[in-house]
Amino acid sequence: MANLPHDAELTPSRYREFLSHDESALARCLSDSVVVTIAYSRDNEPVMLPTGYGFDDDFIYVHASTGSHFARELSDGRPLMLTVTNVDGFVYARTSFDSAVLYRSAVIRGQAEVCEGEAKLAGLRLITEHLLPGRWDELPAPTTKELAATLVLRIPLDRVSVKVLDMADGDSDDDAVNPGGERGFDRWAGVVPVSMVASDAVTAPLTQAGVPVAASVQVQRERWS
Amino acid sequence: MANLPHDAELTPSRYREFLSHDESALARCLSDSVVVTIAYSRDNEPVMLPTGYGFDDDFIYVHASTGSHFARELSDGRPLMLTVTNVDGFVYARTSFDSAVLYRSAVIRGQAEVCEGEAKLAGLRLITEHLLPGRWDELPAPTTKELAATLVLRIPLDRVSVKVLDMADGDSDDDAVNPGGERGFDRWAGVVPVSMVASDAVTAPLTQAGVPVAASVQVQRERWS
Repeated sequence: MANLPHDAELTPSRYREFLSHDESALARCLSDSVVVTIAYSRDNEPVMLPTGYGFDDDFIYVHASTGSHFARELSDGRPLMLTVTNVDGFVYARTSFDSAVLYRSAVIRGQAEVCEGEAKLAGLRLITEHLLPGRWDELPAPTTKELAATLVLRIPLDRVSVKVLDMADGDSDDDAVNPGGERGFDRWAGVVPVSMVASDAVTAPLTQAGVPVAASVQVQRERWS
Repeated sequence: MANLPHDAELTPSRYREFLSHDESALARCLSDSVVVTIAYSRDNEPVMLPTGYGFDDDFIYVHASTGSHFARELSDGRPLMLTVTNVDGFVYARTSFDSAVLYRSAVIRGQAEVCEGEAKLAGLRLITEHLLPGRWDELPAPTTKELAATLVLRIPLDRVSVKVLDMADGDSDDDAVNPGGERGFDRWAGVVPVSMVASDAVTAPLTQAGVPVAASVQVQRERWS
């Protein structure tokens, strides 16, 4: 499972929300999602847009249509904030106050750098390979026209905060959870894990008869299984 | 399936990204997710936070700890933007340029109103019932202390944009997709749908022996099945 609650061996039997300073927590958070929400300010009002992304050790990469207003604002050096959130399950606590969504989220602050030349192609490859692992080499290289229509941006991963709501088993030993001393252990509590699952590929009808499903599809199926 | 590509009967055999003006598209988008990302500006820089939510026909509801800096800024009447995104699958197009994530996203603009008294309790109920359907009535009512520690906010659903990337089958009849007249129909193309799936509930270990799994858990299992 790609995005079940993790590190159960490190987690005491209680509810906890914490900032992770573990670099692998960031990599897992980025690996286990495909959409990032980007925000910036325009005249002191927020602007936001969800989009696909790719990443490597140092940067998160996004792309946009060259002609879009959004792309121009994103790339003009203004402060950006990006959020990636994974939902891992639901905490059925013994009170509504303590009930929760299990999640992991990464918040990234920074400014976008425009990728040009080889860096642009490398960024596009990282985005395609994150969204559709193994697909890049099955497809023709982008044309000059396609490249000209696409802006590729990268934001450094050096101002990042990863927050994790982790709970081994949905219980808590904090008295505040059940005020008045009523612990409610005769009431069921626990966790319902959720994860993303892929189903059978649907072949596009214009595909010539007899063409087998692309090998990369199996990678996607295994990623979300 | 809660969040497979929908309205296939309305969709021609091509790739399309469109603004939906259908109110039921908003309701489906909000129903099929559990986390909203909220953004606002502070000194012309973006601030963002993902959180759980609930909704009714007129408002989206979120809550926060009364003491948090975030809660104070959220509730002071400044312009907010909220985004909910559902990932429905991956488009394996015949070029990387046309490859995509199938998604539905709702973007909401507005100002938060603080819910007090009965409206506060109703808001909390809507949030709990959206995240854990059927759970509210299985739990004790929130205590005065819990209510005092919680800020409940609602944002009107009257400035909303719903964007849908919908694709019946991963194909396109747009020549721009395959420049140079090379249509690539000998190359496999299609869609890999994904959806959120719940797995078996994990009982909290302090639960008394013999207490059955809460009835509401079955609702969650069916919702993500």
